[in-house]
Amino acid sequence: MAQSIADRRDQDFLLHEVLNVAELSKHEAFEDFNKKTIDMVVTEARNLAIKEILPTQEDGDHNGCVLENGQVSPPETYRRAYKLFCEGEWVAVCDDPEYGGQGMPKVLSMAAAEMFTGANCSFLMYPGLTHGAGKLVEEFGTEEQKKKYLKNLYTGKWAGTMCLTEPEAGSDVGALTTSAKKNEDGTYSITGNKIFISGGDHDLTENIIHPVLARIEGAPAGTKGISLFLVPKYRINEDGSPGERNDVECTGIEEKMGLHGNSTASLSFGSKGNCIGELLGEENKGMKAMFVMMNEARLGTGLQGFGFATASYINAVNYARQRVQGTDLMKMFDKNPESVTIIKHPDVKRQLISMKAYVDGMRTLIYYVGYLFDKAKVTEDEKKKAKYQGLIELMTPILKAYCTDRSFDVCTQGIQVYGGYGYIQEYPQERLLRDCKITSIYEGTNGIQAMDLLGRKLGMNKGKHFMDLLGEMNRTIAAAKEIEILADMAAKVEKAVNRLGEVAMHMGMNAMSEKVLDAFATAHPFLDICGDVCMAWFELWRAVVAAPKIEKAKKKDLAFYQGQVKTAQYFITYVLPSTLGKMDAIQSNITAIMEFPEDAFAM
Amino acid sequence: MAQSIADRRDQDFLLHEVLNVAELSKHEAFEDFNKKTIDMVVTEARNLAIKEILPTQEDGDHNGCVLENGQVSPPETYRRAYKLFCEGEWVAVCDDPEYGGQGMPKVLSMAAAEMFTGANCSFLMYPGLTHGAGKLVEEFGTEEQKKKYLKNLYTGKWAGTMCLTEPEAGSDVGALTTSAKKNEDGTYSITGNKIFISGGDHDLTENIIHPVLARIEGAPAGTKGISLFLVPKYRINEDGSPGERNDVECTGIEEKMGLHGNSTASLSFGSKGNCIGELLGEENKGMKAMFVMMNEARLGTGLQGFGFATASYINAVNYARQRVQGTDLMKMFDKNPESVTIIKHPDVKRQLISMKAYVDGMRTLIYYVGYLFDKAKVTEDEKKKAKYQGLIELMTPILKAYCTDRSFDVCTQGIQVYGGYGYIQEYPQERLLRDCKITSIYEGTNGIQAMDLLGRKLGMNKGKHFMDLLGEMNRTIAAAKEIEILADMAAKVEKAVNRLGEVAMHMGMNAMSEKVLDAFATAHPFLDICGDVCMAWFELWRAVVAAPKIEKAKKKDLAFYQGQVKTAQYFITYVLPSTLGKMDAIQSNITAIMEFPEDAFAM
Repeated sequence: MAQSIADRRDQDFLLHEVLNVAELSKHEAFEDFNKKTIDMVVTEARNLAIKEILPTQEDGDHNGCVLENGQVSPPETYRRAYKLFCEGEWVAVCDDPEYGGQGMPKVLSMAAAEMFTGANCSFLMYPGLTHGAGKLVEEFGTEEQKKKYLKNLYTGKWAGTMCLTEPEAGSDVGALTTSAKKNEDGTYSITGNKIFISGGDHDLTENIIHPVLARIEGAPAGTKGISLFLVPKYRINEDGSPGERNDVECTGIEEKMGLHGNSTASLSFGSKGNCIGELLGEENKGMKAMFVMMNEARLGTGLQGFGFATASYINAVNYARQRVQGTDLMKMFDKNPESVTIIKHPDVKRQLISMKAYVDGMRTLIYYVGYLFDKAKVTEDEKKKAKYQGLIELMTPILKAYCTDRSFDVCTQGIQVYGGYGYIQEYPQERLLRDCKITSIYEGTNGIQAMDLLGRKLGMNKGKHFMDLLGEMNRTIAAAKEIEILADMAAKVEKAVNRLGEVAMHMGMNAMSEKVLDAFATAHPFLDICGDVCMAWFELWRAVVAAPKIEKAKKKDLAFYQGQVKTAQYFITYVLPSTLGKMDAIQSNITAIMEFPEDAFAM
Repeated sequence: MAQSIADRRDQDFLLHEVLNVAELSKHEAFEDFNKKTIDMVVTEARNLAIKEILPTQEDGDHNGCVLENGQVSPPETYRRAYKLFCEGEWVAVCDDPEYGGQGMPKVLSMAAAEMFTGANCSFLMYPGLTHGAGKLVEEFGTEEQKKKYLKNLYTGKWAGTMCLTEPEAGSDVGALTTSAKKNEDGTYSITGNKIFISGGDHDLTENIIHPVLARIEGAPAGTKGISLFLVPKYRINEDGSPGERNDVECTGIEEKMGLHGNSTASLSFGSKGNCIGELLGEENKGMKAMFVMMNEARLGTGLQGFGFATASYINAVNYARQRVQGTDLMKMFDKNPESVTIIKHPDVKRQLISMKAYVDGMRTLIYYVGYLFDKAKVTEDEKKKAKYQGLIELMTPILKAYCTDRSFDVCTQGIQVYGGYGYIQEYPQERLLRDCKITSIYEGTNGIQAMDLLGRKLGMNKGKHFMDLLGEMNRTIAAAKEIEILADMAAKVEKAVNRLGEVAMHMGMNAMSEKVLDAFATAHPFLDICGDVCMAWFELWRAVVAAPKIEKAKKKDLAFYQGQVKTAQYFITYVLPSTLGKMDAIQSNITAIMEFPEDAFAM
């Protein structure tokens, strides 16, 4: 069976044929990233993912993390993988080379991350969070702080975390009670308890830097009084080396549904009255810092979800091609019908094409948004830059919520294709589902993403970003209309895009009227609709690229390009009608949710 | 927090106000089951479920089963629960009192099973499979076999299993290779390996009786050559007591995604050449016996799925009523807004009403089909009996597949409502999801259910059963039209029912034409559509019963009846439109699935 991670052919198609990512190399910032380099990076990531990270999966899931005497040990196999990951300089691939980054286009890092996360997300989170902590230092640190922390983080020599959540402050970050008191030397004494801290403790690295949200004594209540602090596990000596232990204690690790290889820690800061941290950025501006990081973190979470889906899909395809069970439906009543591989069964094929449609569509969505980051970075046209950034703002909640929800569905189908074996821990499918589940919850639950879309992003700049999105969709539709075999599909997508415009207007108006609660009660379904239409758009776009190549394509390429057109046809004729139905529902001004008497849920 | 199992108020509503189950007591077979007795049975089941079975959950999931020296030990807490379950005479509640059964209406046993399975399904499977094995003996055994086995099984003194699956014979039972050779004394020597045998070994009982499917030497290939054997773990002495060990060996138990408390065993029969079994029923008629059991087993599996959903829903409601997080959307911009319970958030309320709609609807579907069994049993009108049995045949695959798929969705939402805590093993939600997953796979995958619906049930008796179903739906619609506040909903359901008739015709025609593969590629979505329309019908039916009572109802009852109407309104205005969209899709004669080039799934 082929090693399972991601669909390389499809990645290449997307990078080079759909998005033409190599064009970025015309710009100085990315001049090293021509097609050849891009391919080399993808190949290297794939090798590392398959040869070194994938084999750590079982150890991570089965043995997990162990807390003993206040110290967490990660799964043993993670040590070698972490070392190789850092040696390969994968921690800060997109960041400024001046601080130890690789200056890679974001879209390319997505292709790599897709494979790493598909191989073992619970491992990838250690360097991933480390990068996030580094990014905070890069964005908000003083020169001194950058010198002290940044290279150590970006090279993975030290690890990082992100300490937001408290038992009574989850989605409502502003309710946190961890406090900070300024000391005479300018440092702060931190006191409080954090929970659900991913990678919160381990000994993969000689030090761990915890960015901690806390309230300086006397600061305002709510989010306006929150500041950000850097709290190292080991205090840092004058010479920059780790010194004595800081008063940060790991008091427990969670037994979770999945992601067992990542330590989800409860951390106690200052229980001995001796936890020293330093302010990062300005006082009371901690939430602002969080918001700056949020788009990237949410994009990353959507990508995680997708990584599970793509792995589950590839596994399912490989399994369906090999597993022999049952007979051909057309030969069922033959005397001695031969058994066939299950990919021959119509219902299995339906499941696979459904998985493929979502996986291809989500890959396009994720790479596309990644590419918008890159284009915003290189363009000198301020209007274009604003447009790209606006699209990123708008599409981020859709990407995060839609990709994590649909990826979970794909993982569910990935189990179903395996039949009984899908339920057994010996096979990867059930683990992928368990690991995937958290992605709809953390980095802002998907319900919060939906509120963000409806409450903030939809109306931003008087709806300009949303109109820009529809404009991009219409460009693809116009191109599709020019291709005979796509004209019918183009008309269907056009109808859906026009309807989406109407629905968005309807939602936006309601959200600003006395129907505001009814509007927010359907915010998540509205986000789903946006996601569905994006999928249809991207499938059509893929077909626009593939269709003209069918005529001259040879064997494998022929199947590939035909597959693109058929996948689009499947999604647009088969899934989109129920999206239109969901639009009807939303436009019917439903009041039943908010009118429902709370007591009636259950007596 | 209220103990979580099921919604008693809703169970009572369904049993007494919607279905009027006590009317069965007019018939001799059920004369003991008047309203008072029914309520007593439900209360007793609830007490046993909450006080004795629910506390075994954690032990079952966390400690699971242990195989040591060829013997499986179940979770320790299961021993007491099993003893009490048998003492309460819950093993064979619906069966003939002559053989140790309780003669209870099936619909009432559903209400009990809902609570038992919600409390701990992995426990319930031990007596459940025991009952199934007993049922086989009752239906197909000789008088001698009944005397030897039946009372021991129906009282739970001995346990039973069901041994179908082999590594290369899962969905394709006909491919099995376990063989049977007749001995001179009329017994058979059995040789072969079975896998995935639920409750396949344990020491809860002094003996385990394995019904085993095997092929007698020289019998035809495929399903036509399969016979059924009774193979005891311990051979049975002349006096009926368990004697020496039979040659049945437990060679392993599976590490599964969930249901850890139930031993899923690999069993080796006759590895020492000394496994003795006796034929149950006729030679080569083993599959016929399986088919007789199948409706009940599939109904039971649908009910299992539902049991998880109802527990997850009740937990979510209780959690949302207690968990304080975030502020009221209308007061977000106040200076110091107070925090509220999360049930106040529109998106959480939407999730709860969605869960409720499916849970209530599935409960109705399951009890309704159970009630059809009872009515078929008592009616003396042969036409009616045939109608009830036809409806059971038709609705069984819908019930099995739709309830298990939707229950999994409900369990997914049940995690989401808990936020991060939903992902933690300390809380019940993630376990319910893990346990639930298998129900869409075993007892015939949901894909197989869809094939059964389209290929066998839809056209049965020239479509009479399907027409009968539509007829039942139309009766409810007619009643709803008479109630002013339901008239609009009634019209919507009527439209959907009419469309369902058209879609069924379309599917049936295609399945008998050259489009047969395209038809079967959409068999599962067709089943989903049938299920959706059933949900709408049942929600409307509930509203028809509830609406007239609103005027005179007091506090809690008022909320309850209003809740019924609002739930119907939610489902019918809000979910049904996307069902209509799915109908459009199916009627568009999709060919993309079967035309999709297999190679293009992934290169």
